Amino acid sequence: MSALTAVDVIRTKRDGGVLSDDQIDWVMDAYTRGQVADEQMSALAMAILLRGMTGPEIARWTAAMIASGERLDLSAVDRPTVDKHSTGGVGDKITLPLTPLVAACGAAVPQLSGRGLGHTGGTLDKLESIPGWRATLTNDEFIGQLRDVGAAICAAGAGLAPADRKLYALRDVTGTVEAIPLIASSIMSKKIAEGTSALVLDVKVGSGAFMKSVEQARELARTMVELGGAHGVRTVALLTDMSTPLGLAIGNGVEVAESVEVLAGGGPTDVLELTLALAREMLDAAGLSDADPQVALRDGRAMDVWRAMIRAQGGDPDAPLPTAPEIETVRAEADGHVEAIDAYAMGVAAWRLGAGRARKEDPVSAPAGVVLHKRPGDRVRAGETLYELRAEQADRIPAAMAEAAGAVRISETPPVGRPLVIERIG
Amino acid sequence: MSALTAVDVIRTKRDGGVLSDDQIDWVMDAYTRGQVADEQMSALAMAILLRGMTGPEIARWTAAMIASGERLDLSAVDRPTVDKHSTGGVGDKITLPLTPLVAACGAAVPQLSGRGLGHTGGTLDKLESIPGWRATLTNDEFIGQLRDVGAAICAAGAGLAPADRKLYALRDVTGTVEAIPLIASSIMSKKIAEGTSALVLDVKVGSGAFMKSVEQARELARTMVELGGAHGVRTVALLTDMSTPLGLAIGNGVEVAESVEVLAGGGPTDVLELTLALAREMLDAAGLSDADPQVALRDGRAMDVWRAMIRAQGGDPDAPLPTAPEIETVRAEADGHVEAIDAYAMGVAAWRLGAGRARKEDPVSAPAGVVLHKRPGDRVRAGETLYELRAEQADRIPAAMAEAAGAVRISETPPVGRPLVIERIG
Repeated sequence: MSALTAVDVIRTKRDGGVLSDDQIDWVMDAYTRGQVADEQMSALAMAILLRGMTGPEIARWTAAMIASGERLDLSAVDRPTVDKHSTGGVGDKITLPLTPLVAACGAAVPQLSGRGLGHTGGTLDKLESIPGWRATLTNDEFIGQLRDVGAAICAAGAGLAPADRKLYALRDVTGTVEAIPLIASSIMSKKIAEGTSALVLDVKVGSGAFMKSVEQARELARTMVELGGAHGVRTVALLTDMSTPLGLAIGNGVEVAESVEVLAGGGPTDVLELTLALAREMLDAAGLSDADPQVALRDGRAMDVWRAMIRAQGGDPDAPLPTAPEIETVRAEADGHVEAIDAYAMGVAAWRLGAGRARKEDPVSAPAGVVLHKRPGDRVRAGETLYELRAEQADRIPAAMAEAAGAVRISETPPVGRPLVIERIG
Repeated sequence: MSALTAVDVIRTKRDGGVLSDDQIDWVMDAYTRGQVADEQMSALAMAILLRGMTGPEIARWTAAMIASGERLDLSAVDRPTVDKHSTGGVGDKITLPLTPLVAACGAAVPQLSGRGLGHTGGTLDKLESIPGWRATLTNDEFIGQLRDVGAAICAAGAGLAPADRKLYALRDVTGTVEAIPLIASSIMSKKIAEGTSALVLDVKVGSGAFMKSVEQARELARTMVELGGAHGVRTVALLTDMSTPLGLAIGNGVEVAESVEVLAGGGPTDVLELTLALAREMLDAAGLSDADPQVALRDGRAMDVWRAMIRAQGGDPDAPLPTAPEIETVRAEADGHVEAIDAYAMGVAAWRLGAGRARKEDPVSAPAGVVLHKRPGDRVRAGETLYELRAEQADRIPAAMAEAAGAVRISETPPVGRPLVIERIG
């Protein structure tokens, strides 16, 4: 048999062919070990983006990324394990109330999360606005916390799918992020390596999401549900609307505050609705269909788990969250109905205020962000506050004002409501 | 105006768009300076390969590569300048007799050449089998030799189109060689930067060539002819057959020997035919249509220029060429007619014998190669020699035997001849 070379593998995909199992296994292993160079992998990634991959190719590619590192064994956790992953949106703080809520209903939730980049926020960035909270756990601490508390939200260790870590950083700088096979295998390799038995995917659709159309989102969701099944992880996906920000808060500390409101039995209706919808899917997938998440919210059990979870990672759930010295209030110019609030524009505005980062190594501001006072469907009168822009430095405000300027559309008649959960796949 | 980024440029091409002049100028300059990384350029190259480029895009890309370095000024050479470029084939030694022949007819030929890679040979490798000959000239030596001798074949200096040098090496390892916009701009940027006033392109078609179909070759030829015109270089192209090796010799020293035969008034008919056809095109393009290359061959003027050209670069035109200690003779098993000799298979056989290299840093053998005793159309009797395999080490022979095994097809009836020059574009 002749030896495999990177150029042969690239050419196969470039010319529209199907990569063999041997080619996939070889190229992933050689890339992880540094024998296939970054410039070769980026050419291959572009060929995959433009030529696509078959189902079996994606499955093998994912398996090879999992095989590049360790796979956690959560059998020491004596509860059913179930995780959730969101493809990312604006104001998407759902992981924060959802994780303790599902744990309060009897499951263990091993939530390995990421940081924000661009206009979408990251769960770890949000939690780091809680004084003392740390994102890093060892594998033993992670498993121990799942056993004791039932919930842990932390950074993925370097040992999980190292090939994905390397490839993700490469795709980010080479215009090869937007390939469904690569997105699906990146997400699923980490989730499968994390050791969860079941997984619920929240695939976002709309201006503030990565997937702008329902067709794209559906293809991504189906690909991931199949990958989960092929690796023995019960996986379902919800396609949910991300044309409007979720809830009223967009930022880090402000989203923690809103999450705590939900855990306390309040919060915006859309955040509550999506939290409960995802909780029910997770409990079903974990074999705990009898549990009622609404009750666990109402009776304070979810809040108890939240507090235990934050404390277990060094955080003080009672400490005040940082506040922003600079606040600019934007008011309505005329009476009417809020027809729409563009998620993307508001996400970029929060980013400009300091809540997000342009490069991985940039810091984020804990108190910065946008706080909406009105939601689509709300009546508004001239002079009423539409939203606040919050920042640590005053010079952050003008750029954010410009981004947010056209985001809120006011109409004379009430808008037609759109469903939050668009479709279920699984 | 917002700053350009590599990811934006890559995305534009990835999504099927047309790169702006600013994008092209910026990315080429930033790549040459190392601010756009190899992994970004390889992703862009793959996107160009799969999405293509418009004529104006290719023209700008070529101009940007020329602008990355110096452009030679040959105005001190008081003769019309004209160069030739071949896209590469098996046994293609035409540059060797052609360059002194055209110089003998009154033009100056500034021939910047390359080395071989894979199954095709390189002009510099061939000439280096002449004892003492050196491939490197300074710009001043190059211009001086063009003035004094009228002909110089040497390596391109590092100052010419450095962006192309960097990009070519990258394409070689990333499966992005086979893109017509990138091939055309690579060839033409070097030829235009070299300062020639006119250029004749020999675009090879067939198994031993880079372009396997006439359609591909025609597209490449047209692209290059347009690029030349846009930069004030009178350019014409001949599409020529490369399904059969050119002449009888395939290797380094053996091709020099065959070239000297042509200059001495002999040599295989196909080598002579193509040399004269290209010489006439070059003389036409140089405004010297009255010169008769056949006369310059016959009366020894071409040979005189050859000897002066070799001596000017330290070579001894009278020194014996190195000989191979290991020679394997392959004979016909039956009577018949040689129907075809596959150029690619014979090119690979010569490579295995040591005449070619797999990696740029590998050395090549001067005496190694294949010497044909029969050509397509020849009658052959059982037991007659078909070809010899020559090598410095005996252990090189078996692999070459295997490659050459099916290359010669014998039939009972004489084959239909195929034209050497297929088409003229310009």
